[in-house]
Amino acid sequence: MNGAQALIRTLAGSGVEVCFANPGTSEMHFVAALDAVPEMRGVLCLFEGVATGAADGYGRMTGRPGAALLHLGPGLANGLANLHNARRAGTPVLTVVGDHATHHKRLDAPLETDIDSLARPVSAWVRRSLRAADVAADAAEAVAASIRPGGVATLILPADVSWTEGAEPAAAPVPRPPSTVPEEVVGSAAKVLQSGEPCVIMLGGAALRRDGLEAASRIAAATGARLLAETFPARLERGAGLPAVDRLAYLAEFATEQLSGARHLILAGARPPVSFFAYPGRPSELAPAGCQVRVLAERGEDVAGALTSLADLAAAGAEPVRQPAGRPELPDGDLTAETAAAVIGALLPEDAIVCDEANTSGLFLPGATAGCPPHDWLTLTGGAIGQGLPLATGAAIACPDRPVIALEADGSAMYTISALWTHAREELDVTTIIFSNRAYAILAMELDRVGAVASGRAARSLLDLSRPALDFTALAAGQGVPATRAATAAEFAAQLRQALAEPGPHLIEALIPPL
Amino acid sequence: MNGAQALIRTLAGSGVEVCFANPGTSEMHFVAALDAVPEMRGVLCLFEGVATGAADGYGRMTGRPGAALLHLGPGLANGLANLHNARRAGTPVLTVVGDHATHHKRLDAPLETDIDSLARPVSAWVRRSLRAADVAADAAEAVAASIRPGGVATLILPADVSWTEGAEPAAAPVPRPPSTVPEEVVGSAAKVLQSGEPCVIMLGGAALRRDGLEAASRIAAATGARLLAETFPARLERGAGLPAVDRLAYLAEFATEQLSGARHLILAGARPPVSFFAYPGRPSELAPAGCQVRVLAERGEDVAGALTSLADLAAAGAEPVRQPAGRPELPDGDLTAETAAAVIGALLPEDAIVCDEANTSGLFLPGATAGCPPHDWLTLTGGAIGQGLPLATGAAIACPDRPVIALEADGSAMYTISALWTHAREELDVTTIIFSNRAYAILAMELDRVGAVASGRAARSLLDLSRPALDFTALAAGQGVPATRAATAAEFAAQLRQALAEPGPHLIEALIPPL
Repeated sequence: MNGAQALIRTLAGSGVEVCFANPGTSEMHFVAALDAVPEMRGVLCLFEGVATGAADGYGRMTGRPGAALLHLGPGLANGLANLHNARRAGTPVLTVVGDHATHHKRLDAPLETDIDSLARPVSAWVRRSLRAADVAADAAEAVAASIRPGGVATLILPADVSWTEGAEPAAAPVPRPPSTVPEEVVGSAAKVLQSGEPCVIMLGGAALRRDGLEAASRIAAATGARLLAETFPARLERGAGLPAVDRLAYLAEFATEQLSGARHLILAGARPPVSFFAYPGRPSELAPAGCQVRVLAERGEDVAGALTSLADLAAAGAEPVRQPAGRPELPDGDLTAETAAAVIGALLPEDAIVCDEANTSGLFLPGATAGCPPHDWLTLTGGAIGQGLPLATGAAIACPDRPVIALEADGSAMYTISALWTHAREELDVTTIIFSNRAYAILAMELDRVGAVASGRAARSLLDLSRPALDFTALAAGQGVPATRAATAAEFAAQLRQALAEPGPHLIEALIPPL
Repeated sequence: MNGAQALIRTLAGSGVEVCFANPGTSEMHFVAALDAVPEMRGVLCLFEGVATGAADGYGRMTGRPGAALLHLGPGLANGLANLHNARRAGTPVLTVVGDHATHHKRLDAPLETDIDSLARPVSAWVRRSLRAADVAADAAEAVAASIRPGGVATLILPADVSWTEGAEPAAAPVPRPPSTVPEEVVGSAAKVLQSGEPCVIMLGGAALRRDGLEAASRIAAATGARLLAETFPARLERGAGLPAVDRLAYLAEFATEQLSGARHLILAGARPPVSFFAYPGRPSELAPAGCQVRVLAERGEDVAGALTSLADLAAAGAEPVRQPAGRPELPDGDLTAETAAAVIGALLPEDAIVCDEANTSGLFLPGATAGCPPHDWLTLTGGAIGQGLPLATGAAIACPDRPVIALEADGSAMYTISALWTHAREELDVTTIIFSNRAYAILAMELDRVGAVASGRAARSLLDLSRPALDFTALAAGQGVPATRAATAAEFAAQLRQALAEPGPHLIEALIPPL
């Protein structure tokens, strides 16, 4: 068999069964090999940022590597922003980047690019396969690397390595469980919790799944420690019956308030709290002065296990505090960020996967959905906008029996709007809600916060999306996704109810005023 | 004044008067400073690839740096594909990439990225400004660097360098003319031309503007040398009254035919001819065996001057051969790639700027438009698709009195479809024609050419855009661009005539079968 076939068989044998693809000429042998390996499913995306964002969503929901097939340096470049988000999320993601044949490299043909250099800033592992005989072993290593924390695994695949015969599949890598946190570290955290001094436990990564949350909640119940989740979790399990944890606020002013008074900060899968951006004259580090920061478990360690050990030490007998069930009433009247959140809270289906890139329009969502039936909440982990629709694509492919809700800001949606086409093509059960406030509202807010004075027309026009107004129902219909527009809370509720009741993708443009 | 104001004043004073922008929080002081410097026009783009492609189009048409303002590493990443094309075009392009404040870098906040590493593969010049006092001088150097051949100039601008007071504008860099080709080089080429042996002159870059073409045509008339243009010129002046030059074919089979028999190949602003991709068992270098390749002038040298000197030496008294005026008749019947080209040839307005990303659908365009009134033809220089609509954006801003025609393939259009919104917002006189064959037709062709066997459904589905069909009239209307759909040659002609007659942007979806 040729290199491409050996590569794909190795990936499929290692649990990589879906590849989000935007191929070109150099990847044609990979594409052809899909016919020979039915265990691998190719999902076509019209833009590489959709493919990489979908790989992220798939990896977050399955725990197995989400894979993307990209075309040389420019294809990788188009996918980098969502690979950056995947890196920040700690998602297992593996990209295969096709390249020119080895003998073609030195000719500096038009598409020649320094793929290796482009890959490194988002990748923990980069390798260029140089022989068909090596590519399967390289692929197995890429799978192993993609599961380790800290970045994406990028395998560069020259066209001739794909097309040369004589390759054989390699064995799947042996899974390695996350390493256990030493007893002394857990014991030392227990002492801090039992000191009686004010303590905050910051939860991130795997700590935000059920096991970690329950252990953390027991600790809080027994010791009085406060719990906070990182601002932008990759995947937060929440809803009725699960312990509820507030997220650290995006705005540093509020985050500082949440952390105030803490003498100890214990990090469980989370990083030390820092401001998203710097602001003139304000500190970037958010822990209060004099607060001692210690790491219970970092990414790549068994975070939930460490929290459970800590709970057994410091909170024996305590029970987690569970979120009671409850939904907002369906509101009437104007559609605003607040009433839209109430509608979503009233109707969110059980087991939903929410992909949240609502930005400023999402302010009221956590409160309105806290008591909904259990669901997963996936956020924009790296700040590179254009993630929500691709993330929903991958989550829906990963979990075909679960309803997926993409909450999108209008400005962010336009970066990767062609994800809607893949929603239609694959008949994904994704309900996209566009919060259409016709502005980069977050920038209007940030303009003031950074102390910039911009009362003039030139500056303000760079934050404005109203001229012309984007019609997201047309943008969706043009890609095969049925769409409606809601201008009142009642319209929004009726449309959301219907979209959730019908299989396949839908889009609702929710016209709301800026906050 | 603060760093941002000094930067913008320096750019405006150096002839950089337009900035295509997709800013974020770290660029808010740059945005605010636009109010203080009315000489700089900010043009909002909804995606960074639109901003960088527009900067390329602007730079190609003005010869002055096209500028783009981007937001940290992910913003730069989204713009890289079209920066790659700009680098291949040799366009003067300058990007300003906002970054976190200097004191914020070490905190590894969510958007932290290795911007420098991402910039280098497309940039000839990268600098990070570290003090407000330095930023203006850095900007002047960036302008100078952007005009030199070989890549983009990238200036990384930390937020605190923008907002800190105490900066002053710097003087504009002194323009440096391209260096003159030594007399001996010209004389040596003249000897080859006068040898009587078969000779091909490959023209690229500045050789494809009127002066270069006329000199080359004189040489061909006097010596019998054949002329060929590089396959994908940044800007080719053509039409009635200009010397006509065939472009080297994209398909290596045809290119080899064009070059066959040549004993000498003289490169004037062009690079040695190589295959776009490698194919199993076929050579990547296209010059015939035994053909001697020599460089008359390379990019960055005075290519047109060298051709003129060579014509004076080897073709004194000869006249250029000029393309006679002539247009195809308006066809009737089915709309195909061939009849669509005839319609365009029949109606192309004088002084048009054609941005050509028609790919396989463009096969008949050169022939059909050869005798049209003089116009500029801009092509996809680097093979990174998604360039046409952004390029048209920049060309239209650069030349507001000239009609711009964007010829787009459906697959390519989706990469940067939000360029249409900027067409509408800026009321640009751009007529976009989407050749909608509902396939990645070039890949279906390449699949066979690389010798891949893919008769199965899995592989073929990755080249198919018909399920669902994209409705480009809806995608345009959703962004404020009036649009129609043509299914016959007569419909296409009527719609194109009307679009060209009306000011502002239009889109026509031309439904054609794959070649």
